[in-house]
Amino acid sequence: MTAAKSASHMPYVGIASFLKAPVCADLDYLDADVGVIGIPFDEGTMNRPGTRFGPRALREQSSLYEQYLPGEGYYDIELRQTILRGVNIVDCGDVPIQPLALEANHNRMTQSIKTMLSRGALPISVGGDHSITYPVVQAFSDIGEIGIIQIDTHADVFTFYESDLTHGSPMINVARNCPNVTKFVQIGMRGLMLGEKDYSDSIARGNVIITSDEVRSIGVDWVLDQIPEMPYYLTFDIDSMDPSIAPGAGTPEPGGLLYHQARDLLRGVAKKGPIVGFDLVEVNPLYDPTGTTALLATRLVVDFLGAIFHER
Amino acid sequence: MTAAKSASHMPYVGIASFLKAPVCADLDYLDADVGVIGIPFDEGTMNRPGTRFGPRALREQSSLYEQYLPGEGYYDIELRQTILRGVNIVDCGDVPIQPLALEANHNRMTQSIKTMLSRGALPISVGGDHSITYPVVQAFSDIGEIGIIQIDTHADVFTFYESDLTHGSPMINVARNCPNVTKFVQIGMRGLMLGEKDYSDSIARGNVIITSDEVRSIGVDWVLDQIPEMPYYLTFDIDSMDPSIAPGAGTPEPGGLLYHQARDLLRGVAKKGPIVGFDLVEVNPLYDPTGTTALLATRLVVDFLGAIFHER
Amino acid sequence: MTAAKSASHMPYVGIASFLKAPVCADLDYLDADVGVIGIPFDEGTMNRPGTRFGPRALREQSSLYEQYLPGEGYYDIELRQTILRGVNIVDCGDVPIQPLALEANHNRMTQSIKTMLSRGALPISVGGDHSITYPVVQAFSDIGEIGIIQIDTHADVFTFYESDLTHGSPMINVARNCPNVTKFVQIGMRGLMLGEKDYSDSIARGNVIITSDEVRSIGVDWVLDQIPEMPYYLTFDIDSMDPSIAPGAGTPEPGGLLYHQARDLLRGVAKKGPIVGFDLVEVNPLYDPTGTTALLATRLVVDFLGAIFHER
Amino acid sequence: MTAAKSASHMPYVGIASFLKAPVCADLDYLDADVGVIGIPFDEGTMNRPGTRFGPRALREQSSLYEQYLPGEGYYDIELRQTILRGVNIVDCGDVPIQPLALEANHNRMTQSIKTMLSRGALPISVGGDHSITYPVVQAFSDIGEIGIIQIDTHADVFTFYESDLTHGSPMINVARNCPNVTKFVQIGMRGLMLGEKDYSDSIARGNVIITSDEVRSIGVDWVLDQIPEMPYYLTFDIDSMDPSIAPGAGTPEPGGLLYHQARDLLRGVAKKGPIVGFDLVEVNPLYDPTGTTALLATRLVVDFLGAIFHER
Amino acid sequence: MTAAKSASHMPYVGIASFLKAPVCADLDYLDADVGVIGIPFDEGTMNRPGTRFGPRALREQSSLYEQYLPGEGYYDIELRQTILRGVNIVDCGDVPIQPLALEANHNRMTQSIKTMLSRGALPISVGGDHSITYPVVQAFSDIGEIGIIQIDTHADVFTFYESDLTHGSPMINVARNCPNVTKFVQIGMRGLMLGEKDYSDSIARGNVIITSDEVRSIGVDWVLDQIPEMPYYLTFDIDSMDPSIAPGAGTPEPGGLLYHQARDLLRGVAKKGPIVGFDLVEVNPLYDPTGTTALLATRLVVDFLGAIFHER
Amino acid sequence: MTAAKSASHMPYVGIASFLKAPVCADLDYLDADVGVIGIPFDEGTMNRPGTRFGPRALREQSSLYEQYLPGEGYYDIELRQTILRGVNIVDCGDVPIQPLALEANHNRMTQSIKTMLSRGALPISVGGDHSITYPVVQAFSDIGEIGIIQIDTHADVFTFYESDLTHGSPMINVARNCPNVTKFVQIGMRGLMLGEKDYSDSIARGNVIITSDEVRSIGVDWVLDQIPEMPYYLTFDIDSMDPSIAPGAGTPEPGGLLYHQARDLLRGVAKKGPIVGFDLVEVNPLYDPTGTTALLATRLVVDFLGAIFHER
Repeated sequence: MTAAKSASHMPYVGIASFLKAPVCADLDYLDADVGVIGIPFDEGTMNRPGTRFGPRALREQSSLYEQYLPGEGYYDIELRQTILRGVNIVDCGDVPIQPLALEANHNRMTQSIKTMLSRGALPISVGGDHSITYPVVQAFSDIGEIGIIQIDTHADVFTFYESDLTHGSPMINVARNCPNVTKFVQIGMRGLMLGEKDYSDSIARGNVIITSDEVRSIGVDWVLDQIPEMPYYLTFDIDSMDPSIAPGAGTPEPGGLLYHQARDLLRGVAKKGPIVGFDLVEVNPLYDPTGTTALLATRLVVDFLGAIFHER
Repeated sequence: MTAAKSASHMPYVGIASFLKAPVCADLDYLDADVGVIGIPFDEGTMNRPGTRFGPRALREQSSLYEQYLPGEGYYDIELRQTILRGVNIVDCGDVPIQPLALEANHNRMTQSIKTMLSRGALPISVGGDHSITYPVVQAFSDIGEIGIIQIDTHADVFTFYESDLTHGSPMINVARNCPNVTKFVQIGMRGLMLGEKDYSDSIARGNVIITSDEVRSIGVDWVLDQIPEMPYYLTFDIDSMDPSIAPGAGTPEPGGLLYHQARDLLRGVAKKGPIVGFDLVEVNPLYDPTGTTALLATRLVVDFLGAIFHER
Repeated sequence: MTAAKSASHMPYVGIASFLKAPVCADLDYLDADVGVIGIPFDEGTMNRPGTRFGPRALREQSSLYEQYLPGEGYYDIELRQTILRGVNIVDCGDVPIQPLALEANHNRMTQSIKTMLSRGALPISVGGDHSITYPVVQAFSDIGEIGIIQIDTHADVFTFYESDLTHGSPMINVARNCPNVTKFVQIGMRGLMLGEKDYSDSIARGNVIITSDEVRSIGVDWVLDQIPEMPYYLTFDIDSMDPSIAPGAGTPEPGGLLYHQARDLLRGVAKKGPIVGFDLVEVNPLYDPTGTTALLATRLVVDFLGAIFHER
Repeated sequence: MTAAKSASHMPYVGIASFLKAPVCADLDYLDADVGVIGIPFDEGTMNRPGTRFGPRALREQSSLYEQYLPGEGYYDIELRQTILRGVNIVDCGDVPIQPLALEANHNRMTQSIKTMLSRGALPISVGGDHSITYPVVQAFSDIGEIGIIQIDTHADVFTFYESDLTHGSPMINVARNCPNVTKFVQIGMRGLMLGEKDYSDSIARGNVIITSDEVRSIGVDWVLDQIPEMPYYLTFDIDSMDPSIAPGAGTPEPGGLLYHQARDLLRGVAKKGPIVGFDLVEVNPLYDPTGTTALLATRLVVDFLGAIFHER
Repeated sequence: MTAAKSASHMPYVGIASFLKAPVCADLDYLDADVGVIGIPFDEGTMNRPGTRFGPRALREQSSLYEQYLPGEGYYDIELRQTILRGVNIVDCGDVPIQPLALEANHNRMTQSIKTMLSRGALPISVGGDHSITYPVVQAFSDIGEIGIIQIDTHADVFTFYESDLTHGSPMINVARNCPNVTKFVQIGMRGLMLGEKDYSDSIARGNVIITSDEVRSIGVDWVLDQIPEMPYYLTFDIDSMDPSIAPGAGTPEPGGLLYHQARDLLRGVAKKGPIVGFDLVEVNPLYDPTGTTALLATRLVVDFLGAIFHER
Repeated sequence: MTAAKSASHMPYVGIASFLKAPVCADLDYLDADVGVIGIPFDEGTMNRPGTRFGPRALREQSSLYEQYLPGEGYYDIELRQTILRGVNIVDCGDVPIQPLALEANHNRMTQSIKTMLSRGALPISVGGDHSITYPVVQAFSDIGEIGIIQIDTHADVFTFYESDLTHGSPMINVARNCPNVTKFVQIGMRGLMLGEKDYSDSIARGNVIITSDEVRSIGVDWVLDQIPEMPYYLTFDIDSMDPSIAPGAGTPEPGGLLYHQARDLLRGVAKKGPIVGFDLVEVNPLYDPTGTTALLATRLVVDFLGAIFHER
């Protein structure tokens, strides 16, 4: 346990770890229900760089949600329920990143998550850009068949560049190279960047694609009805949220989700099957002058963790 | 009447007083229907300081709503009604504040409001942080039984720190020490900071607690139905609003109220009984790069004043 | 075709033209379905200057929507439809502006649009402040009877200043001096700046005035029902949008339209009759630190163009 | 005397007038040694607009230099001297400005300064852009022969646009139309915008032109030696200062003056003859995120006033 | 040793501790040559709040100066010398702070420094505002006679408020209540806030007062000659630096020190006698949009530590 | 010639090309004395990303220095000389960049510069981060023996990472792999990042290393005396400049060069031999809120071009 916990509870006091949780210096000795690890990698970005600062931004903003005692949880006044009581969360620091060392970086990402899994912790990855999801999902290759639920603006199935490992490609890479991932559910799709053929091909393969308009006009309950029950990995791209509340995204797009929609989606997803891990990516503090994006991301992580452990 | 009114009507011209109203230099000679006073105090803040600049931010943004002639009012195109015609509004400057002089500062706050009341003006306090509400409400001790309507994210009933006069405490202080305040209505509650026991205790005492989710999903009309008729003081914490429209708040939280909800709440409240005074607190210009938070706060003050005088 | 197209498709690469479209150096040789021209004029502004940088801001943000091949169009995943296939869009640069040379500037605006019309292109004007709409609409004097649909917070019919050519006046100027404009539809009206008599006079003349509240509470379909079928020019003031998503506006006001409402309005309007041209004004990058306002404006232009050409 | 003085001395408390001095509501009754008037006009700007907010920015930052008692002056620790003791400074508000009403605006500027002169006050004009200097200097037509000392990056003698009243033209306008101005001293010249012929013509007319390089490499004492003794009006363009300390300028240029150079120049100029008035222009708060430019401008005004009254 | 060191050396990777040094969770077990402790207290501020975020800002910016191996030191190319080789630096976290609990906060500050001293570490305090220097210096009461060298714009000897513990008072409090502090050397004085009598009284007591002008025009060597040899505590207010390089200060003032002057002063001071401890205060990240102030502060801490250990 | 030139000369009007020069769409047809090409690549960055936006930032700020007629040059008032008269400058757009396609990107950089050289133009590269200098210098392999003058804070000779092609490595890569580069002159060195052995090895190889302190304290003339006469390629890292004037750098460091020092260095270097090309790198607009860094960079490019063509 670092100095942070033995000091004060004011958000601005102490070294900033995620939720001011204890910091784990060596993953081989991790002892926690939940491990949160930063992946400050943004070399896959096709537009605005800066998501490398995402993990630190979430640490800073999450100071607001410090728990007074480890595992005391939070009383959610809107749920009228206490969440995360007895759940032990640990900040696992960051995956080491070296510029222009793609393969080594990817290997470290995969290996870090594998170690967290081997220690029995639920692994939460904080990006960084969306390209990290591919090496992260590779860490789950030994846990049997899973689906992926992707809350995102973009389908991230581009493959036509000189590099196919950018933040526009993680989903097609997973689809091609992770045989234990057998289902894709994409929620919040919008914008002008998905190719028409990419769309029809995906539908033909049995995937579920739900647009942002459909979430708003038909409703979250209907969306949840489209999702079959099975174990899931969830990947949350913060650009799925409306730019009004999440300006600090790598590739913002008008017309996104509102907080209560995203929260209700996450709560519903937690009921669909065990969640084996999740990531939250694309928070870009260089475009987030008031910190609202990182605060929102933190809150969504807490909400989803609350729902996951409520279902356990 | 200051130079401001004799100059021009462009928002950027002239010294910035609230709505470019005349400035009262000495409260003992105040002659107005409404007195707006700034309380630039933020030492009670547990997170982001800067609300000391709130009064000036509202003055700056409120330049947009200058009236061409004193008391001509405003035509509200959405109401299709003219509001505040003949209502005389005066800017009473700021309560003097000295750092680290808590008791003296509190006394000046209470005394300033008392003087405004004695001059027959409706007192509007612009924060500053939410800790000011306690000394302000103390000024209403002689006017008989009142309720408090609090539009806020947080219940502000924390008492477990070395100081119990922070911006997390005003409501519990009022509850304990202001015997003429007999009813508490808290609207917009959300987030993870209220203790479960604080909640159940409050309900047990007969208070009304309505969450942000309930405002959105059940509706403003239902909320208003929960509020009994009696004279009210209203305190409005700008962090009740969604961070998308009010990033410049001391302690933002995702999932807040939208403008039309807040406006409709204020209009409805004005029908519940005479409003004896109100405050608008926690506007923090240091986190409001485009001024939208201060502009929103100004508009809500004007809307509520319009509703109050419409009911008179 | 400039270097931009022959380079790369990353948004941050290449000289920024609108949608990275080819640039037309001389309007007399314009050959395009759509011509987009900037009008960097903000001397008519009564509040925050800076809309002179609006055209460049849209060019910068629109890099995100570059097409890989001219005329390939965009697949809109929410519409599940490809838009703008085969439509040739050209960036016509900016109308030359000289400070304090109002008449010459206005003449250049009118003349530029006339030339674009004579070349058979649909002229899109990007402001600049709203005062440009009057000289722009004058360019349409020879095309027969048209109506104007104005999506805006303010009615822009002020006439009581020393100058009647500010951004508060374009609509009254058009009404008085453009005899071929016979119908005014104003959508999104809100705020406290319209005079009561201005409102009643306008209604008496048969104009349609719809408030922002009405769009939200009654719905877009009802709004569209109020609009008669005829040829239209549309003027879109970005301050019609909610400040949460469009902080970078010249005169923001709480309670505005959301993206999906504006988009649906534009799609519906395109069905009401041929659109002879449109402008999008009042984007102010000096109050848009994360670029969301300019991005939103760009997307609305693309959405409306898509709808217009879908109806052709 | 406004409420500001009767309140507190903390910079953030009270309505912001210049140095928190008393506000004069009607120039016809001005009773002061020094009158400071804002001229929030920036329509003459050829680059970045926003100097219309200059007067308010100086008022805000000047709160730091509030005097505890009127006329007590300031002890300047570096001079080891008390300045401005017994000097009565008054904030005269702003000259009313209407957009696109150039002649009326100019007349009001000239007339306001004339009135201040007739009341016996030293008139200080705070811009606004540099175009205001021409109408301001016209107010001094009746006081006999004067010289102008211009501290500036640019010579401001452009005349080749459709309008010759921009912020690039004030000096040539004064030279042509103010016969009582018989000497021009231009200090701090640099950059790439002056025409070679403009330079040689000016020298031929007997003017003194001193570059920024010369101030730095030869020194302030030498510069002062070039200035003949006579009554002077001084105009200070904040863009003369280095952009490192004055980023918030209308047209910044690398290689400008440092604070101590400007201060020493102003002190030396005050010894050259009576100063009949001065202006400080081109402070642009929209490019001054930390307020250093407005603070610097305020300090220079105080320094120069101190020197002027020390010589009286 | 935290996870930070076992991760990567890129500045943006890992949890941000000061210089990414190991974090000490309990001062009673501190084992280091140097302990750096944050004091996130800004309630003594008379102008711009926000220095509570100073410690985190230095941690963030200091990531740039991470050492690859503990104690390897830095090669200073300008000195052509390796500094801090073998010096063991530890981040001691923050002193716990509670709002409006002045006495308890002060006690914790004093006690924390005392504990660090008892553990044999050189204590470095990072503010927070300048009011912290008084409780910090009290921790040195048992080490015998010392002098204080204060590098600052302001003398900080104000005593005339309702509270005498603000950031305007630390020096007078030390002078009155810390009998082992027998010498005051104040360097960098400038501005308009020191009273004339405060100045003459201080000189009469034998203190050394050197202005910013004197540092620049006479030189650092002369300044150092004025400083007698004895053990010193040094307090460095970042507002002593010029606002061009240190905009993020609580109370900026034009005409401050440049980096090389401050660095040379610190190097010279280290030769005057043993340095028993020092603080660096008043870094305000809310006014430091590009981080230059916090980076400068970090570099000065490293420079001074290098000089101190070079003299040992 | 693009539309920009045929429009207006106001900086804010027209599409932003470098100096609003004509744009060359195909390098094979380049016909110019000087070609300026952007290289928006920042994947080699070890700290703050964002220099990918550098070329656009220089284009935007350089609008201020538009020439009225091609080749008319600029009158430099401080030089009292007209520079660049008759010199034909063309904006060559950007080198196409694909994320995570390092080799292809490098090849395009080298090839673009080779083509510009083959067309007889002086190639100017605008970064992007400093890693681009290695592929750019490779384009000069056929022009015979040259030296490199590097104006920079850092020596950029790091080689110990998983990748040796970051922005910390260009100089060691050139030294190892570009046999025609036989001399290295490094000016402005400072900071704590160069290894002691790297320094001594470099000196042993006969290179010239001059620190920032030496430029300031000994002077530019002495620096120039250390530079032998021969043909040179110059690389200018904007972080060599002081952060006060160049906050928008990838890796800022206190104590850098001032504008007049850099300008005088560039003028002096131009006399040392023919300049075969140069680059200006590391301008990061994401840390340059007021644009001063990009403006400074533009001015330095113009100054250096002026000096180069003056010597021809």
